Amino acid sequence: MKMRFPLLASLLALLAAGPAVAADSLRDQAKGLFQPIPETPPQLPGEPTTPAKLKLGKMLYFDPRISESHELSCSACHDLGMGGGDSRASSIARGWQLAGRKSQTVLNAVFNKTLFFDGRASDLKDQVLRSVTAFPGAMQKTRGGPTIFNPAESNPAKTHAVEFLKGVPGYVDAFKKAFPDEADPITYDNAARAIAVFETTLITPDAPFDRWLKGDDAALDDSQKQGLKLFMDKGCSNCHNGVNIGGASFARFGLVHNPGPDILPTDDWGRFAVTKNVADKYVFRVQELRNVELNAPYFHSGHVWDLKKAVEVMADAQLGVQLSDDEAGKIADFLKSLTGRQPQVTLPLMPPMVATTPRPQP
Amino acid sequence: MKMRFPLLASLLALLAAGPAVAADSLRDQAKGLFQPIPETPPQLPGEPTTPAKLKLGKMLYFDPRISESHELSCSACHDLGMGGGDSRASSIARGWQLAGRKSQTVLNAVFNKTLFFDGRASDLKDQVLRSVTAFPGAMQKTRGGPTIFNPAESNPAKTHAVEFLKGVPGYVDAFKKAFPDEADPITYDNAARAIAVFETTLITPDAPFDRWLKGDDAALDDSQKQGLKLFMDKGCSNCHNGVNIGGASFARFGLVHNPGPDILPTDDWGRFAVTKNVADKYVFRVQELRNVELNAPYFHSGHVWDLKKAVEVMADAQLGVQLSDDEAGKIADFLKSLTGRQPQVTLPLMPPMVATTPRPQP
Repeated sequence: MKMRFPLLASLLALLAAGPAVAADSLRDQAKGLFQPIPETPPQLPGEPTTPAKLKLGKMLYFDPRISESHELSCSACHDLGMGGGDSRASSIARGWQLAGRKSQTVLNAVFNKTLFFDGRASDLKDQVLRSVTAFPGAMQKTRGGPTIFNPAESNPAKTHAVEFLKGVPGYVDAFKKAFPDEADPITYDNAARAIAVFETTLITPDAPFDRWLKGDDAALDDSQKQGLKLFMDKGCSNCHNGVNIGGASFARFGLVHNPGPDILPTDDWGRFAVTKNVADKYVFRVQELRNVELNAPYFHSGHVWDLKKAVEVMADAQLGVQLSDDEAGKIADFLKSLTGRQPQVTLPLMPPMVATTPRPQP
Repeated sequence: MKMRFPLLASLLALLAAGPAVAADSLRDQAKGLFQPIPETPPQLPGEPTTPAKLKLGKMLYFDPRISESHELSCSACHDLGMGGGDSRASSIARGWQLAGRKSQTVLNAVFNKTLFFDGRASDLKDQVLRSVTAFPGAMQKTRGGPTIFNPAESNPAKTHAVEFLKGVPGYVDAFKKAFPDEADPITYDNAARAIAVFETTLITPDAPFDRWLKGDDAALDDSQKQGLKLFMDKGCSNCHNGVNIGGASFARFGLVHNPGPDILPTDDWGRFAVTKNVADKYVFRVQELRNVELNAPYFHSGHVWDLKKAVEVMADAQLGVQLSDDEAGKIADFLKSLTGRQPQVTLPLMPPMVATTPRPQP
């Protein structure tokens, strides 16, 4: 547009600058609370990533034969084509038992400070060890307090996993390469180490929100920017912050209002089962919100399928805030901007069993 | 080697030519019976492969949310990282019910003349339709005769699949692109068409045996060549021939000797359930032997885990031949040369559910 009126031009320039200043101010506020997902996978402390460990970890992640039934792999409940979870209110364990809580996403899990809804795992390897012992046998009892899992049920599964891996020549070779300095590399612990290393690669950089954080104004639309502002101003970001927009702390679910037994079942005491501290009854790990759009249903109980409804529940239960329909919709729109570039994973070819390999127990 | 004795040179040349002649003769015999897997996927008759159909079919193949439980996908029983089957004696259906027969490989299935152990499907699409109706509801009754599947159980699953797909915006878009000329493209039949198109790509060319068939002498070792000769001379190739080394005909299991109820359970009448012809009792589809090394356990009953043992069982049951340990070992060695280049499959990203998408029924 050719300008013939200098005053009008100045006014238009000012108007144009207006939103830009607001955007910068919103961005400054956001940058104080959130960080983008890095473009390259982080290294685990004391566990250098090597191509051999990665290759082994990926095979193990997808291999259902580690479970006694040969039916349940990591990917059965953490589907990398579906946001890293399983789109169910409760995962299914051996014998079609319900796990009792919803599966949590493995995507960006490396950035969480603790894992599981009750935070009983301190890192990825710890999570793997506890999942493997829980799933192939009967499911752990997470509800009702003291029992986290039953060692009598977990030991046979552990034994099967190691004996199975020792019985497959391709795995014998893969463990040797992944842990070249060890005389007896096929251990339960090393399997978990390799899976954890693979899981460090399951990150989702380049979400619209991250591009916006880095300065790309057009990466968020107006509703998402307003949603972000509400997310910070209403107090959501008090707990949901950092690189994973959550995943770093604990909070009692129902701090202000109890969301009711459908959403907060009375028999799941959350973190109390880990700490035995009565102050931890109904305390849960603050959920990371990265890729939350892909990970319905919401909450440990998996009762809420609508992201906007989940936002309303949280605002009421944790903050005592009644959001308008418009506000909840805008926050949900913002949350959709947290969906990043999903990992492109080529299915590994798992080494074949031979005549002497331990067989599945139905 | 510099030759000072022309006669010796001629003799050595003759000796060298000897095995070459034998190899050619073995190859000529083999070429009359077997064909290599083509390097490029075939087209289905009347169903041109398009990028949009392929993309949709791949998503559907991996998506467990088509099943009512959101737990069972095609890949649950046809694992592309594990030879295209599930390494179990019986696949697991909804509610941890046992399917009653072993899962068969999807690899190279496009080259089979019929599908399922009783041959009740005539092509890939037909197989998909029958599997989807069978699995998400209670499992079909294949044993004991007349009931192939119970329509009362299959209809809800069919309804869920279509309603689910219509409820996911990403699928609405993908079906439109895959079937651009149709007003209402999301149908059960079109889902099966897309999956069938994806499955045409699941072929395994370039097996050592195929390289040998094409003239590469070094592709098979001596034991494998002797095994191939035994495979043809003893009569295995009477049924196991063609591009898939089987998969093109039917035979009564136990033609000469009954292998016993563990291997041939008395209550699974095989093809009789399809034809109602008493002559078809205990008649089964001749198994394709491509990638057989990756597809233990063997037979519809999944009772035999050792490939060599499976060879011995077949020779005795079908041909009345007692193989020596050495002979069975060589045939098994030959069969391992049928393992081809496995498809490299990148996991598809499945479109997310929205608030209104039909939810799973546990």
